Amino acid sequence: MANSPSGDSMTDRLVRVLETFTPTRTVQTSAEIGRRAGLPSSSAHRIVAELVDAGLLERDESRGIRVGMRLWELATRSSGALRLRQVALPFMERIQARVGEHTQLAILEQDEALFLERLSHPDAVTNITRVAGRLPLNASSSGLVLLAYADPEVRDRVLSGRLIPLTPATITDPATLRRTLGEIRLQGHVVAPGYIEDVSTGLAVPVRNAAGAVVAALSVVLPRDAPTESALAALHRAARDIERAL
Amino acid sequence: MANSPSGDSMTDRLVRVLETFTPTRTVQTSAEIGRRAGLPSSSAHRIVAELVDAGLLERDESRGIRVGMRLWELATRSSGALRLRQVALPFMERIQARVGEHTQLAILEQDEALFLERLSHPDAVTNITRVAGRLPLNASSSGLVLLAYADPEVRDRVLSGRLIPLTPATITDPATLRRTLGEIRLQGHVVAPGYIEDVSTGLAVPVRNAAGAVVAALSVVLPRDAPTESALAALHRAARDIERAL
Repeated sequence: MANSPSGDSMTDRLVRVLETFTPTRTVQTSAEIGRRAGLPSSSAHRIVAELVDAGLLERDESRGIRVGMRLWELATRSSGALRLRQVALPFMERIQARVGEHTQLAILEQDEALFLERLSHPDAVTNITRVAGRLPLNASSSGLVLLAYADPEVRDRVLSGRLIPLTPATITDPATLRRTLGEIRLQGHVVAPGYIEDVSTGLAVPVRNAAGAVVAALSVVLPRDAPTESALAALHRAARDIERAL
Repeated sequence: MANSPSGDSMTDRLVRVLETFTPTRTVQTSAEIGRRAGLPSSSAHRIVAELVDAGLLERDESRGIRVGMRLWELATRSSGALRLRQVALPFMERIQARVGEHTQLAILEQDEALFLERLSHPDAVTNITRVAGRLPLNASSSGLVLLAYADPEVRDRVLSGRLIPLTPATITDPATLRRTLGEIRLQGHVVAPGYIEDVSTGLAVPVRNAAGAVVAALSVVLPRDAPTESALAALHRAARDIERAL
């Protein structure tokens, strides 16, 4: 698309506008969007007006701007990963009915774990995961599984980058992480006690496509001291069921 | 954003590109996208390349173009309607465990019923609904509930437009439809036998926000001749639970 005087493309500007919306910032004014996207005020107003006309953004009663349902619809209806999520959902429900905590499905996206789905019981243990939210590969159980089976170049890039701890238990030493990833490939699952939050343990298994490549991680979150055996068995069984259904 | 020689804005072109992707057409070449979006080939290639760079579209191994996960993530993470879906999900699971067929959540979007969620059992009765798919307001049980409680101007617009039958049972007569909408408001639910498919019956109830406005329809799909009483009771109970949780 045409470039602005500053040289960034219109697509870049659009992405910067959309990126100003977050799970905790769902309504903004045009001026706030412009400031956060680093756009001149007149450009911000024009872009927002066009996106509202197209239904990609929506104006609420008090003139606040929200992400539009039309954008969600266009992004969702033809997405391959969302087909994975739809196939997995009944089996995730079965895990959750049995294990009784959070059940999650994540994929590898730009060197992070992106969560496609999360089922939760109202009285389940605390969990910071959100649908369409992300967690670091070295900290979340889903991330560890995705990293264990990722292309070697992804693994090398993540291992040579900054490994940020979310708790004192998060693995941040590259050698320890590399050894852990080898153990995950050997065992076919991970148990991650307190890596994300002190009070909880994450368990995750890989989900493979017809060609045998790992395309997702299926995980549950348990209280830190809960037994893991029956939850791991439920995860392995569900992963096999999802693979058959794919 | 800057306008092209033909006068359509870059946002219009972007939307036209995204609209070429559908649930049954998830991979296309740049040339196909350009032809379906009505864009000159050089423009189509440039726009697609920019959208791929931004992660909003993705190129697969065989150079086909798909909708990117980044677009889904940006569209989903700050969407208000998806918060509704996340709140409703545990209660929808409970309905489905009890009723054993499809359970769905829909909102009114541009004079159609847009489906935010659908839970299905593998052996459930046939159902043409898709997540992020749409159905006409006069045909689906969800649509009838949404139309019954819509603003009068929406109702007048739909009633004076074309009412397309999906089966011989679909209501297409404006006077009959207006009377049916009145009955829905009186009873607080709808039973729609064979309106969408001959073999199934849809049941739907409204879901209200804290201010009492109807924001969604909660529905189940049953085999055509199944008893409806316990499913209706489960729907009413779940709608109340969702309203309390919102």
